[in-house]
Amino acid sequence: MIRTALASSLLLTASTGVLAAQEVYETEQANFSVETIAENLNYPWSISFLPDGAMLVTERDAGSDGLRLIEADGTLRQAPVSGLPGDIVVNRQSGLFDAIPHPDFAENRLVYISYAQGTREAHRTALIRARLSDDLSALENVEELFAVNFDIATNRHHGAKILLDRDGYLWLSLGDGGDHMDEAQNPSSHLGSLIRLNEDGSVPSDNPFAGGDGGAPEVWSYGHRNIQGLVQHPETGTVWSHEHGPRGGDEINIHTESGLNYGWPEITYGINYNGTIITEERDREGLEQPLWYWNPSIASSGMTFYTGDAFPHWQNDVFVGALAGMHLARLETDGDRVIGQERLLEDLEERIRDVRTGPDGFIYVLTDSDEGRVLRLVPAE
Amino acid sequence: MIRTALASSLLLTASTGVLAAQEVYETEQANFSVETIAENLNYPWSISFLPDGAMLVTERDAGSDGLRLIEADGTLRQAPVSGLPGDIVVNRQSGLFDAIPHPDFAENRLVYISYAQGTREAHRTALIRARLSDDLSALENVEELFAVNFDIATNRHHGAKILLDRDGYLWLSLGDGGDHMDEAQNPSSHLGSLIRLNEDGSVPSDNPFAGGDGGAPEVWSYGHRNIQGLVQHPETGTVWSHEHGPRGGDEINIHTESGLNYGWPEITYGINYNGTIITEERDREGLEQPLWYWNPSIASSGMTFYTGDAFPHWQNDVFVGALAGMHLARLETDGDRVIGQERLLEDLEERIRDVRTGPDGFIYVLTDSDEGRVLRLVPAE
Repeated sequence: MIRTALASSLLLTASTGVLAAQEVYETEQANFSVETIAENLNYPWSISFLPDGAMLVTERDAGSDGLRLIEADGTLRQAPVSGLPGDIVVNRQSGLFDAIPHPDFAENRLVYISYAQGTREAHRTALIRARLSDDLSALENVEELFAVNFDIATNRHHGAKILLDRDGYLWLSLGDGGDHMDEAQNPSSHLGSLIRLNEDGSVPSDNPFAGGDGGAPEVWSYGHRNIQGLVQHPETGTVWSHEHGPRGGDEINIHTESGLNYGWPEITYGINYNGTIITEERDREGLEQPLWYWNPSIASSGMTFYTGDAFPHWQNDVFVGALAGMHLARLETDGDRVIGQERLLEDLEERIRDVRTGPDGFIYVLTDSDEGRVLRLVPAE
Repeated sequence: MIRTALASSLLLTASTGVLAAQEVYETEQANFSVETIAENLNYPWSISFLPDGAMLVTERDAGSDGLRLIEADGTLRQAPVSGLPGDIVVNRQSGLFDAIPHPDFAENRLVYISYAQGTREAHRTALIRARLSDDLSALENVEELFAVNFDIATNRHHGAKILLDRDGYLWLSLGDGGDHMDEAQNPSSHLGSLIRLNEDGSVPSDNPFAGGDGGAPEVWSYGHRNIQGLVQHPETGTVWSHEHGPRGGDEINIHTESGLNYGWPEITYGINYNGTIITEERDREGLEQPLWYWNPSIASSGMTFYTGDAFPHWQNDVFVGALAGMHLARLETDGDRVIGQERLLEDLEERIRDVRTGPDGFIYVLTDSDEGRVLRLVPAE
């Protein structure tokens, strides 16, 4: 099976703009090589796939010029997709974030995009929806669906991962805004929460604070530091997230119930990056424990469940990128449990910003730098 | 709290035979230093504690001379404890294994001991019980409680960890005998099973095959490769084990139900150490999935739940030694779940054979070599 997959990969390679085949990485559940699909991107933040295999890649630091298209044949279009809002603020962690097509994109051509909206001094995470033109060159009918109800000046901890689940809900992850960690404990503030909407941006009637009592109507859960991964388990349907934590506090959570408080900053396994203590409390009655946490921290970013056929032993495993940790984490799962962990791509010595399963069954990752790349893992003997 | 613990540690150090204080190891949940308590041991395999703080240490390769006593003041007695059986076979993985005092040792002075019994050509894991003399110098009233019902000539995969649980049951872990992996799937053979007895060696009436139908009466579970860790969770009371697996297949299991098949060698996450495939199957209906597995393998050996006060953030965490992996694994737990992993003592570059919480709240580990040492982790600033 692996040899067959390799053969088809080489055929594909020969017919596309793939830049260079790499050495073979041998691991206990799969052997693979790494191909460079695109390069010279300005802090690429998100990669997603259109039904025909074309890719949307965002460049965080390119702001309003940062929505890029890679053709299905692997060619990076030089002109960015036009039509992004003009109020994207680019500074430190602020910029253009996620760009995710609607599951029925082939019919409705809708794309959902998150970004830091405003100015360096007053900005917030916002979510828009737009139609992508037939030639994939422009956004049309841009409409704002949501914006955080708390302005910040920190240019940090925006969250901003988007998930369109198979039940038709639209999820947006948020962060605590950096200097506003206490707002994560306030469900009336969007900071530090996980947002759940209908696809048109309206509030589902079964949201925990839908009536506005006790919290903001859009809030599904709160007590989060900075959610940088948001996916739905392909079999159980459970929404999984991970948040980029303090030192020693990167963690994965699952979201089977609404209205829950995940504890930040009241409880955490981490300490501040300068070594000072946030809290001695690791757990408390009424606050959720993580499904998994990384110690030491990896600086988690991006997340995908692997659902392709190219790597049979990786089926339904979770892959998470590591920025400071400079690797790709593979977490073996058994339903909604993590039962093992492996580090991949350590030899690359690259910060990994995002990871996603492609429709071809290969795994795509983004490296995080001003010379960012799109890489693809393909099976090898 | 950490400073107080350090002060008491230094007092203790000054008054005992501790050989040398070491550098400080800094981790996110605790800082500690490592002290050498004893050295020049011949492949020490097990460490356990008597109520007054004295330690029983076995030397696998010293066989019938391998039961050693470290006084409560840290002094290693030069003369081994006498009275071990004369039929201990020492060869490769065969030898003297566990030596564990009864929970009521202060009253009954009973010790349980496992070893490879027989000859190089025909041997089996056996379990004996004896009285330790008042001066701690000799075993008396030695009685055999159990011996595996299948002789092997491989000198490999003996299991042999002993647990006396708080409900009064006596557990013994076994291995598949190395060249007899298929016997792990045969519940009538003791090979590859977990054994549960009453403290006197009789069979509990609620064992799954107590009547002898469908399996050996002593068997609690089967389908195990080589269980090298066996402990009871201090809060949930669940029995946890880990087995030293094939390459990529070291795993932790929990034992809440009897009569279960844990799958070896029908399913496994590992492959043979020479790289050949054991099976492509990672899971199958009716066979148990692990709670956790290590990928890549660490060569797991020894296990303890940390229950002391010296390291408050390590409370109830599981520690497992790594032989080939040459570190001490700390697994953060939440009840009967593993939610995180950390590697300690990597800088030592020593194979870790056993780990146990001492009555002083410190953590004791054995290094695996012909110059084996007893080390102790104590808090540091």
